[in-house]
Amino acid sequence: MVGKESKVDVLIVGAGPAGLMACNALLKAGVSVRIVDRRAAKVAAGQADGIQPRTIEVLQSYGLADRLLREANQMHMAAFYNPGPDGGIELTERVPDVTAPTARYPFEATLHQGAVESIFIDSMATMGLQVERPVIPTSIQLSEDERILKDPQSYPVRVTLKHLGTNEETLETEIVNAKFLLGSDGAHSWVRKSFGIEMEGEQTDDVWGVVDIVPDTDFPDIRNRCVVHSNNGSCMIIPREGDKARIYVQLNDKSAVDSESGRVDKGRIGPEQLLEVARKSFHPYTFSAATEISWWTIYIVGQRVASRFSVHERVFIAGDACHTHSPKAGQGMNASMNDGHNLAWKLAQVIRGWADMTLLETYELERRKYARDLIEFDKKFAKLFTGKPRTEKNQDGVSHDAFIGIFQKFGGFTSGIGIHYQPSLIVNTTHQSLAKGLAIGQRMIPHTVIRAADSRPYDIQDLLPADSRFKILLFTGDASQSNQLAQVQALSEELDRPSSFLHRYTPSGNPFSTFDMLSICATKKEDFDLNNLPRLLRYHWSKVLLDDTNTDLNSKQESKVAHDFGISPAGAIVVVRPDGYIGTIAPLSRQGIEHLDEYFASFMKL
Amino acid sequence: MVGKESKVDVLIVGAGPAGLMACNALLKAGVSVRIVDRRAAKVAAGQADGIQPRTIEVLQSYGLADRLLREANQMHMAAFYNPGPDGGIELTERVPDVTAPTARYPFEATLHQGAVESIFIDSMATMGLQVERPVIPTSIQLSEDERILKDPQSYPVRVTLKHLGTNEETLETEIVNAKFLLGSDGAHSWVRKSFGIEMEGEQTDDVWGVVDIVPDTDFPDIRNRCVVHSNNGSCMIIPREGDKARIYVQLNDKSAVDSESGRVDKGRIGPEQLLEVARKSFHPYTFSAATEISWWTIYIVGQRVASRFSVHERVFIAGDACHTHSPKAGQGMNASMNDGHNLAWKLAQVIRGWADMTLLETYELERRKYARDLIEFDKKFAKLFTGKPRTEKNQDGVSHDAFIGIFQKFGGFTSGIGIHYQPSLIVNTTHQSLAKGLAIGQRMIPHTVIRAADSRPYDIQDLLPADSRFKILLFTGDASQSNQLAQVQALSEELDRPSSFLHRYTPSGNPFSTFDMLSICATKKEDFDLNNLPRLLRYHWSKVLLDDTNTDLNSKQESKVAHDFGISPAGAIVVVRPDGYIGTIAPLSRQGIEHLDEYFASFMKL
Repeated sequence: MVGKESKVDVLIVGAGPAGLMACNALLKAGVSVRIVDRRAAKVAAGQADGIQPRTIEVLQSYGLADRLLREANQMHMAAFYNPGPDGGIELTERVPDVTAPTARYPFEATLHQGAVESIFIDSMATMGLQVERPVIPTSIQLSEDERILKDPQSYPVRVTLKHLGTNEETLETEIVNAKFLLGSDGAHSWVRKSFGIEMEGEQTDDVWGVVDIVPDTDFPDIRNRCVVHSNNGSCMIIPREGDKARIYVQLNDKSAVDSESGRVDKGRIGPEQLLEVARKSFHPYTFSAATEISWWTIYIVGQRVASRFSVHERVFIAGDACHTHSPKAGQGMNASMNDGHNLAWKLAQVIRGWADMTLLETYELERRKYARDLIEFDKKFAKLFTGKPRTEKNQDGVSHDAFIGIFQKFGGFTSGIGIHYQPSLIVNTTHQSLAKGLAIGQRMIPHTVIRAADSRPYDIQDLLPADSRFKILLFTGDASQSNQLAQVQALSEELDRPSSFLHRYTPSGNPFSTFDMLSICATKKEDFDLNNLPRLLRYHWSKVLLDDTNTDLNSKQESKVAHDFGISPAGAIVVVRPDGYIGTIAPLSRQGIEHLDEYFASFMKL
Repeated sequence: MVGKESKVDVLIVGAGPAGLMACNALLKAGVSVRIVDRRAAKVAAGQADGIQPRTIEVLQSYGLADRLLREANQMHMAAFYNPGPDGGIELTERVPDVTAPTARYPFEATLHQGAVESIFIDSMATMGLQVERPVIPTSIQLSEDERILKDPQSYPVRVTLKHLGTNEETLETEIVNAKFLLGSDGAHSWVRKSFGIEMEGEQTDDVWGVVDIVPDTDFPDIRNRCVVHSNNGSCMIIPREGDKARIYVQLNDKSAVDSESGRVDKGRIGPEQLLEVARKSFHPYTFSAATEISWWTIYIVGQRVASRFSVHERVFIAGDACHTHSPKAGQGMNASMNDGHNLAWKLAQVIRGWADMTLLETYELERRKYARDLIEFDKKFAKLFTGKPRTEKNQDGVSHDAFIGIFQKFGGFTSGIGIHYQPSLIVNTTHQSLAKGLAIGQRMIPHTVIRAADSRPYDIQDLLPADSRFKILLFTGDASQSNQLAQVQALSEELDRPSSFLHRYTPSGNPFSTFDMLSICATKKEDFDLNNLPRLLRYHWSKVLLDDTNTDLNSKQESKVAHDFGISPAGAIVVVRPDGYIGTIAPLSRQGIEHLDEYFASFMKL
C-alpha cells in the first residue's frame, strides 16, 4: 500500500538531542519541518546526562535554560580520591568542577536524557509540532541533477516513511519530498549508512559499566563529581537530579566481551556485579543501592568520526550519527545539541532566501573539526582514567598531579566555552586586534550591560537570542563627547546608505527583520540622553545600552564591558552570528562598514 | 429557592490581591478553602501595578517570582524633573529607585493588577481550585457562643451566597458554614460593613487623574520612575510592561468633584483632559498617546484604617477592606498581598491543630500597626507631591533636596524591606544581641550560603519557603574544631530529648513535618566532612550549609554569612517564621533550647 506523498522544507530522522535541538530551532524560525523517530516513546531513563556550561548558554538563547535549571542537579565541585597508606581510598583534593573563566553558568548540570528531550518536545508542542513515532524510513533518494541541487527551493530528497502501529505493523507508507534532510539517528545511523559514509577511528579495549542508583553510603562526596582511583579499579560518580547518582566502573576482566564479535554481551554480567566492583573501589566507605536500580549498561569505548557530515549540502548527519567517544568527559549530548544549533540557523537563512547555499558548507567545516578535536581530547582523557594510580609500589602509575593537570588544562574544552570556529565565509578575523578580549570564532562572552532607558542590568548574551538574525553591536565609545558623537553620526549615515549591508540584504525594507542592532555607549547612566543618538541607532528604546557599572545596591560588578573586551575609546563594531559566535569585528568608521559589506556579501543574497 | 448547605475551613470573599494571596497559600498548605467574587471576570487593565522588593521576595517564597519577573517591567532608576530657568522642566537628578541596602531584588516590578492576579489564579488551578464568580454574599452570621468560638474545629460562621448568571439572575442560593471567613472585598467591603467596623481617618482635598497609555514622546526618562514638578502642576510616571506607561496627574481645579457629595464624577472630565494636563507639565518635551488609552480614572486621596481587623479571630478583613491610601508610594497591592501572607500560615497552623487560637490575634496586632504606619508615611509623602516646587519666585515651595530627602529616608519603608513586627507571642527579642546584623521581627536577610554536599550556592531565603513550617537555623560555628563540635553534639542531644520542642509539638513522630532544621557551619568546603556532624543535624544531605565564600569563578561574593549577621564564632540559633520573618534568636546551648521550648510553648499545642 503506497499512501500519500507530501512536501516539507526539512525532514529530521531521529528525535534525540541533536534532532530535537535542530527541530525546535527551525520551528522557532518559522521553517516547515517534521521529525520522525523509530522508537515508540522517548528514552525514560539512563543514556546521556551531563549538560556543559556552554550548552546551558545555548539553551538560554532559546529561552529553555530556566526549565533545565529548575529540574537539573548542579555539579560545582570535583573531588579526587586515591589509595591511602592503609589501602583504602582517601580524599586527595577538591577543586572547582568548571575552570573556564568566562563561563556564565560555572557548573555542569546533570539531568537524564529523557528529561532534556522533554524540554524540546514541550517547547515544540507550544508551536504545534509533535515527534511522529514509531516511524521508520525505508528508502532514500537524492537527486544528482546539479541544477536541482543548486536551487534552494527545490525538493531533491525523497524519503519513504513507514508509520508503524504499536505492534510494529505498518499503518501507512508515505513519501516525503524534502528540501533538506537531517539524519540524527544515532550511532547506527540509517541515514549515514544509506549514503555509505564511513566512520573513521577505532574501538579501544576499555570496557566500562554504568549504573543509575539512589546510593546508600557514608562516602562524603557522593553529591560531587568524583574520580576514584583505587587499587581495585577506577570509578566515577556523577550526582544527578533528586537523590540519584550515576556510577561508572571500569571492568578489568573482559568476561563481558564476546571474543568473537568483540561486542559486549549484557547477558554475561548484571548490575549487581557492577555494584560489587564499585563497593570494592569505595573501601573503606560503605556503598549500596537504597532503591531499585533504574538503569544500567556496559560499553566498550569507541572513538570515531564520520568521514563526511553532509552529502551535497542536502543531507546532513549530526550527533552520534557522526561522532562517538567515551562518556567520561560528559560531551556526548552536548556535542549533539551543538551540532543541531550550528546547522539550524544556516538552514533557516538559506530556506528564507537570505543566504546562499554555500553557507551550508560551513556546517561540516565547523562541526567536523570540533568532533575530531573532541576525540583527540577524549583519547588523552580516557587513558588517564584507565591507567592505574601511582602508589608506593606502582611508580609507573598515573599521578594525581598529572591527572588534575589534564583535567584543568582541558577545562575550556570540556565546558564547551572554548569552542573556536576557524576562519571561513562567516568567520573573518581581519580586525581581531580591535577587541583583544574577544575571540572571533568563539562565542560572545557574557557580561553585564545597563539598558540606557531604564538602567536595568542585562547580560549581553540575553540580548543576543537565537532568533536567526545577525546582531550588529556598535560599541560607540563615549557619545556624549562631541568628537566621538560626530563619528557616530557619520557611521549612522554610512549605515543608512541604500548600498550598505543593512539595506542591501533586507529587500522587505525593514532592516531589523534580518539584522538586530544594539548600541553600547560609554556614558554614565545619570547623564545619558537618548535623544542625542542618531535615530537609526535607537529604532526602539530598548536597543541602547550603557557601558556603565551596575549601581544597584549590593552589586559588586565594577568592570566595564568595552574595557574587558579590549575595545578602545574609539569604539568598534562586533558582529555576532545567530548562534552566538562572533563572526567578525570592524572599526567604527566608513572602512568598518565597507568591511561588513564585504563580509555579508560573501554569503548573503541580493 | 434555598439550595445546598456546605462546609469549608476558610471562605474568602473577594478575589483581589489580598484574597488570592491568602487563598493560594492556604491551598498549598492543604487547607480546605473556597474563594468567591462578585465580579464576573478578573480586572482586565488598570488598577494597582507596583510590586515592591519585599513583595517579590514573598512571591519567591511561594515559587511565584519567576513568572512575575518574566512578565513585569523593572524600575531601577528614579528621575526628578523641576522647572528650569526658561519655565520648562529639566532633569534635576537621577537616583536609584530602591535604596534599601539588603533588598534581594533591588528594583520595583510593575505589572497590571490583572496579570498579578493571574499568577495566583493559575497557581491555584494547578491545585484544582477556581475563583467562583459572579457570587454575592447576602447574609452572614457569627456564633456568639464562647464555647463554639473557642473550638478551632467548629464552624461558627454562616454565610449565604448567591451564585449569579451572566445576566445577574440568581442561579442558586447556598449556605456555607466556615471555620473562618476572610473579607478581602475591597474599599467598600461588605464584610466590614456587616460587622459595623469603622474606617478611621479622613479624605484629603487632593484630586488626581491616572491614565495608562503607550506614550509617544521625546521625554528621555519615560522608562524610569519619574517625579515631575512643573509650574503647571505635578505628575508622576510609572513605566510598565511592554511599551506602556502610567501617568499620574494632579488636578488643580476641582471641576471633577461633585461639591455636594464630595465624590469625583467621571462624567465631568475625560482622559483627553488628563493628557492635556500632562502635556503642559512636560513642556518643552512633546507628549501624546501613540495608541488607544487602555484605562483611566480620577480619585480623591483618602487615608483611612479600619478600627479592627478581626471579629473574635473568626472573621478577618484584609487589603483595601481595612486600609486605603494614595497610590503615590506604590503600596496598595503590596500591603494587601502581605496581609494575606501574614494571615495564611497562622490559619493553617491553627486548622491543622498545631497552634492555639491565640496565634490569630497577632494578625491584627502586626498588620494594623503596619497599616497605620503606612498612612502616616503616606500623609507626608503625598503632601510633598501636592506642594508647588520651590522656584526663584516661589521660595515657599518644596525644594528638590527636601523631596529627595524624604524619598530616600523612607526607602526601607516603601520597599517593604523595613517591615518590623513588634514583640508578641511570636516575636521574642530576648536574645537580639546574639545576632546584631539581624532584626527579630524583620524578614530574614538574603545571603549566599554554600550547600556542603555539593558546593552549590543558594540564597538562604530560598531555603526558607512559605511551607507552613518554622525553620530552625543552627549557626554552629566551626564544627571542625573539637571544642565547638562538642558543643554541637551536646546541642543535638538536647534537641533529641522527648521533651524538647522538636519532639513535643510533633505528635506524628516526624519533627520535620512541623519544623525544618538547617545547620550552617563555618568550615571550608574543601575540608568539610558531613559524617562529623550529629545525624539529627543532617537528616537529609541537603540540610547542611557552609558559611564559606562562593568560589565559583566570576563570583565576587566574599562576605561570610555569620559575620554579616553579627553572629559570633560560638554560634546561635535563629528561628524563622513560616512567613520569612525572624521569630526569635537563642544561644547555641542547653539554655538556648530551653528558650525555644518556652517560645513554642507560648502558642503551640501539645
